[in-house]
Amino acid sequence: MSAPSSGHAADVGLLSPVTAGTAAETVSGDAAVLAAMLRAEEALVRALVRSGIAPAEVETTADNVAAARLDMRSLALEATSGGNPVIGLVRRLRAVVGDEHAGWVHHGATSQDIVDTALALVAREVTSRITTDLRALAARLAELAERYRHTPAVARTLTQQALPTTVGMRAAGWLAGVHDAIRAIERDGLLPVSLGGPVGTADAYGTAGPAMLDAFAAELDLTAPVMSWHTRRTPLNGLGAALFATGEACGKIAADVLVLNQTEIGEAREGSAGGSSSMPHKANPARSVLVNSAARQLPALGAILGSSGTPEQERPAGSWHAEWQPLRRMLRLAAATAEHTRTLVDDLVLDDAAIERNVELLLTNLGRDRDWLTATVAPTSGWIDRVLRQHREQSQHREEGHG
Amino acid sequence: MSAPSSGHAADVGLLSPVTAGTAAETVSGDAAVLAAMLRAEEALVRALVRSGIAPAEVETTADNVAAARLDMRSLALEATSGGNPVIGLVRRLRAVVGDEHAGWVHHGATSQDIVDTALALVAREVTSRITTDLRALAARLAELAERYRHTPAVARTLTQQALPTTVGMRAAGWLAGVHDAIRAIERDGLLPVSLGGPVGTADAYGTAGPAMLDAFAAELDLTAPVMSWHTRRTPLNGLGAALFATGEACGKIAADVLVLNQTEIGEAREGSAGGSSSMPHKANPARSVLVNSAARQLPALGAILGSSGTPEQERPAGSWHAEWQPLRRMLRLAAATAEHTRTLVDDLVLDDAAIERNVELLLTNLGRDRDWLTATVAPTSGWIDRVLRQHREQSQHREEGHG
Amino acid sequence: MSAPSSGHAADVGLLSPVTAGTAAETVSGDAAVLAAMLRAEEALVRALVRSGIAPAEVETTADNVAAARLDMRSLALEATSGGNPVIGLVRRLRAVVGDEHAGWVHHGATSQDIVDTALALVAREVTSRITTDLRALAARLAELAERYRHTPAVARTLTQQALPTTVGMRAAGWLAGVHDAIRAIERDGLLPVSLGGPVGTADAYGTAGPAMLDAFAAELDLTAPVMSWHTRRTPLNGLGAALFATGEACGKIAADVLVLNQTEIGEAREGSAGGSSSMPHKANPARSVLVNSAARQLPALGAILGSSGTPEQERPAGSWHAEWQPLRRMLRLAAATAEHTRTLVDDLVLDDAAIERNVELLLTNLGRDRDWLTATVAPTSGWIDRVLRQHREQSQHREEGHG
Amino acid sequence: MSAPSSGHAADVGLLSPVTAGTAAETVSGDAAVLAAMLRAEEALVRALVRSGIAPAEVETTADNVAAARLDMRSLALEATSGGNPVIGLVRRLRAVVGDEHAGWVHHGATSQDIVDTALALVAREVTSRITTDLRALAARLAELAERYRHTPAVARTLTQQALPTTVGMRAAGWLAGVHDAIRAIERDGLLPVSLGGPVGTADAYGTAGPAMLDAFAAELDLTAPVMSWHTRRTPLNGLGAALFATGEACGKIAADVLVLNQTEIGEAREGSAGGSSSMPHKANPARSVLVNSAARQLPALGAILGSSGTPEQERPAGSWHAEWQPLRRMLRLAAATAEHTRTLVDDLVLDDAAIERNVELLLTNLGRDRDWLTATVAPTSGWIDRVLRQHREQSQHREEGHG
Repeated sequence: MSAPSSGHAADVGLLSPVTAGTAAETVSGDAAVLAAMLRAEEALVRALVRSGIAPAEVETTADNVAAARLDMRSLALEATSGGNPVIGLVRRLRAVVGDEHAGWVHHGATSQDIVDTALALVAREVTSRITTDLRALAARLAELAERYRHTPAVARTLTQQALPTTVGMRAAGWLAGVHDAIRAIERDGLLPVSLGGPVGTADAYGTAGPAMLDAFAAELDLTAPVMSWHTRRTPLNGLGAALFATGEACGKIAADVLVLNQTEIGEAREGSAGGSSSMPHKANPARSVLVNSAARQLPALGAILGSSGTPEQERPAGSWHAEWQPLRRMLRLAAATAEHTRTLVDDLVLDDAAIERNVELLLTNLGRDRDWLTATVAPTSGWIDRVLRQHREQSQHREEGHG
Repeated sequence: MSAPSSGHAADVGLLSPVTAGTAAETVSGDAAVLAAMLRAEEALVRALVRSGIAPAEVETTADNVAAARLDMRSLALEATSGGNPVIGLVRRLRAVVGDEHAGWVHHGATSQDIVDTALALVAREVTSRITTDLRALAARLAELAERYRHTPAVARTLTQQALPTTVGMRAAGWLAGVHDAIRAIERDGLLPVSLGGPVGTADAYGTAGPAMLDAFAAELDLTAPVMSWHTRRTPLNGLGAALFATGEACGKIAADVLVLNQTEIGEAREGSAGGSSSMPHKANPARSVLVNSAARQLPALGAILGSSGTPEQERPAGSWHAEWQPLRRMLRLAAATAEHTRTLVDDLVLDDAAIERNVELLLTNLGRDRDWLTATVAPTSGWIDRVLRQHREQSQHREEGHG
Repeated sequence: MSAPSSGHAADVGLLSPVTAGTAAETVSGDAAVLAAMLRAEEALVRALVRSGIAPAEVETTADNVAAARLDMRSLALEATSGGNPVIGLVRRLRAVVGDEHAGWVHHGATSQDIVDTALALVAREVTSRITTDLRALAARLAELAERYRHTPAVARTLTQQALPTTVGMRAAGWLAGVHDAIRAIERDGLLPVSLGGPVGTADAYGTAGPAMLDAFAAELDLTAPVMSWHTRRTPLNGLGAALFATGEACGKIAADVLVLNQTEIGEAREGSAGGSSSMPHKANPARSVLVNSAARQLPALGAILGSSGTPEQERPAGSWHAEWQPLRRMLRLAAATAEHTRTLVDDLVLDDAAIERNVELLLTNLGRDRDWLTATVAPTSGWIDRVLRQHREQSQHREEGHG
Repeated sequence: MSAPSSGHAADVGLLSPVTAGTAAETVSGDAAVLAAMLRAEEALVRALVRSGIAPAEVETTADNVAAARLDMRSLALEATSGGNPVIGLVRRLRAVVGDEHAGWVHHGATSQDIVDTALALVAREVTSRITTDLRALAARLAELAERYRHTPAVARTLTQQALPTTVGMRAAGWLAGVHDAIRAIERDGLLPVSLGGPVGTADAYGTAGPAMLDAFAAELDLTAPVMSWHTRRTPLNGLGAALFATGEACGKIAADVLVLNQTEIGEAREGSAGGSSSMPHKANPARSVLVNSAARQLPALGAILGSSGTPEQERPAGSWHAEWQPLRRMLRLAAATAEHTRTLVDDLVLDDAAIERNVELLLTNLGRDRDWLTATVAPTSGWIDRVLRQHREQSQHREEGHG
């Protein structure tokens, strides 16, 4: 695929360090979106052949679609006049495949079918990476929970030292959040294909509409909706909630590291702490900061998707168009939290002396001794077991192929 | 400044017509929240007895807690000094039950356990009503889909007449959205109990913490979390997504009625249309307007919940406190959309002549005849069947007791 | 005014400790909103007389409107059928004033005129209290900036001790934020009256519409818009931004106190710290927590108002109705941040020893001595002067009657 | 994983047709942001010379900074480790200028100073274009208001035909909104420079900090804040409100065109209507759709900025980093609404026959005649005059150099 024609118009992540260079950035970039739209158009042609709607010879048209090389920037610019990039895409593809079979390209579909299906493909790529990162993160947290099962640490509530807990208990709490996120992504991380045609009835396929929808979904290994979801945006809810859960599970870990990393607390620091442009002596918790910055953006972006959730008529005049960029941004931000938090936890350095010093301060303030300490943190072991049991069940479930 | 007398401070729904007088308003009001907090404190005492932590005679203390009558307003005012209403609640309850057993009241719990569990109880009451309303709504939509299966109507996209569909197809689309909402509510509409104690370790119960948690949940017929969710707010994600789905399913119906009800289109009107303070001749689609107003508020309220999703430390300094009012508001607004949309659809008046007139206009503009019309809308029947099949499966599933 | 008829439906602040018992809660409660709607209807009748549209004898009708006593709850319940509470209000008022003059009640107005004008009156009451609290807060911060002008303290960035600053510099920074908020409230804290009539043309007044609008505004001592703002919601932008600024100025102070109050830092604590339901030994920063909880809710509530900012037609079908509750909530939350932060700063206890201890730690970590410290913090004095100069100018400006 | 090549990571607007190809897209692109950061670093060096802090010969260093050519993508990728792109930028610049003067580059500044100042420069470029577009739009709307001053049209409220107004009155209403936006942009569209240094005290300049700040501002022709706004984000409130106002003024026009453009109403259509990928006979209101899609995204993006409004400590750990991308997106979206709405109104085609036909329908439904019509719309002329007077005053004010 050719590079964008206008260097000046291209954004390469300068204002988004948290996503720059992540795996999700690439698989959700404009080039990937265009590839996914081409893949959707290709799959549509193949499904037409499979369903017997188009003659077998049209298979070569699908090959031609798959092989098309289009200029992203000109598609983007042209989208202004029609409102979306598919109109220009189809025109170009029909020119590519030649007059004889041009009519089979995009046959029976509407722009929304292609964009929504392409975003489903992109979302799958991103959530697949999220799952990988979250599983690795979970494994590491399970180790931490086990290793630090009996290491007392100060629990803090509303800014104050409260009572003792254990480092393992804290890791178990983080792990439980990651479990929630994995479950949410596995359960709701997929969007279905879209093939409703101009007004959701897929009229061009006659009574073969449902069969075509299923064939199209099979071609892309995605699910088929019960009927068109052009104006039923509930599938985005599940994906949104799953991305939230990812941001929350990872953002919680970052939030705690930011507290524990404070100079006066000093219980944890990032293994590869970041520099400062003005104070070279500082070692900033750069990764936690970035994860935090990403988690902060997800809820309001989700609200944009939610605001598009009650589209009028058979296809709406603006609310659908408002979804694309926020959805892509949510995918990237959530994935970035997973990728960075995985590294963050892998590299996390715990300062045993600081942890112990703070525990001593708590005991002093409470007027308690080590026996009391031991007794008070003893119950954490049972909770850790409970979370680790859930961890084994989730892992086993996946190995058995349900994940 | 003297504290306002209770009457002056009370809000009774004047600025929220959409929720005023709904079933959800009552079961989520401050009185219901207080009752739920008492129920949580009562259940905690009973669970202590069941678990053998407290002696059997403490059961009467639970009765006393259950019978307590407290003044809401003074609790609310007092909450300012401690940050939440449970501190005052516990003090009052301990006075009520007398010195001997006072220590068993709230034993081992923290304020957040009581508030979160109370909100779980309130949420269950509200979502139970939502489910009832959505099922009734679904039944009615299934009838409409069947009855109007062959009635052609204009489908509109991006404000313009596009192609014909059927009235039944439109009803099937609405129904599919309601199915999504029902599934989401049934699957994720419940919050778990909370019993983490001061720092999430439930240390007061020693190694009996998990057993106490399970007993507490059993007492309230709610689920138990794997461990404390004080700072793992993912359970709110699922509930939030389910409330979104409700607002979207109902808001979509209202959005379409608002279009169809336009004077120049005139295909539908509300059976009991609202008046106007200035134009008595108008019949405003008041219920659709209110449903629309509610659906518009849900996404941003969800963003507030989401912004509280990465709480620092073992209990956070503000983000938890920011959840309560938005969560209650979301419960009420979502429930109001279900209650009103059920009535809206029950009373909906379709104007066959207007529907037909608009179809004729479309045919004229397209230069098409009735044969083409018949052929073009024929495929809708298959989609309607597909949604009705899902409807029967969902209904059957519930009758078998899975719902 | 009578107490609400249904105790079960009344909310008295149980889930909103931050606003419970504040001055703003009362002046923005349903009773106050109803009183403001009556005041608007009264002023409308008086303006009709002043403008010569209604005969002089109608002045008694205005008196009757002003003296009306109506039941809030029944108005709220009835609002469901028409979509807003003004329809029922007008019917009752016309019954109250008797047949002869009934027609002058609400003459030429539409429901939105009354609700929007009532909310303008309520907003003025609330912002007036905000200004009072912010000015008192500013005065106190100016004292702190002066008193602690030369007291070194640790400045922290990205969680870490960074370089020294002074306590006075920190207070000056807080003060500059409060200045911004005062300026925003004074400049944009007022909404205009509304008197557009059914479709924004005020047609009932013939060519006297603009004169009537000005008379109506004069009667209420509010400003008149250039023309109807029924569907031009920009006035809400300014008010929203001013409420944001209030929440930010106060929320920033709370955020810093929450850091400084941490056990391991210990540089500041609240004078009247809150209790804990489970850990009596703790002194929670309850007021900072509540201010934080309020500041967190404002942005998303503002997004609801913003989402209502592009209303279709001459009056929209839902977006206006979605504004009322979020706007009231924003007013209350912003005012609560001002009221509580004023008290928070009044009662704030600084721990000189802790401040000094942390400075020593910084010097040790940096390998610096006291001379370097003195030199490094010397520049803060100039910044403090700059902010105090702005403070004197703002104060003087107000004394001269511009505020 | 290997880093993606620059082309693959670049986003060129494919998912954002509303901003693709607009003037604001270019002047706010990553290349423009990088240029603005270089400009800020250059201005800093010049201000050091002007202030006498650096020797005169360092002026050549400023020239060298200005002439630097850096690779955006590598800066973006490197930003991950430090949290922002300035650390890498400074390192490169110091290498460029050579050892002798390297220390003067970025002297006394912190990363936030450079990013915030760069965004102020970018914001100025964008808002300057917004103002130009809004003024041209206002001029066109003033013409429309005058030309159609006496043309009756149907006013619609809550979806229904309500009463007559005039086309000129509708244009005047749009114009009043544009006036509000222009005023907001002119008043609050500028951000100040930032030069607080590591902890807001600008300690590196000693007592010359305020003078350096003023010199830096003068160098860039921007305003100087009273003191560091690192953690006082109120300046973003004003800009945010101004961008909201732009989106609202333009979004309102688009919302009305979307109604008037409906097939059954047909009173207006876009001069260059968009195509459809599936229904070539349709002429979609593509520009209104895109403006609508942009206006929908602004409020929630503003909520992200608002959520960053209470940063803790002297520089926060994530909230600042969360601002950059949403702020840029808001600038682009608001500017896109202005650019597209200007064209939309320039090209708008009104259908006199349809307007008249709908008026006739209203008269029939109301049982009214033309005399009543004339009398009822007569008052609109006074309102139009009032808005046009405001228009002349605004225009004059600008010509006199206040704008």
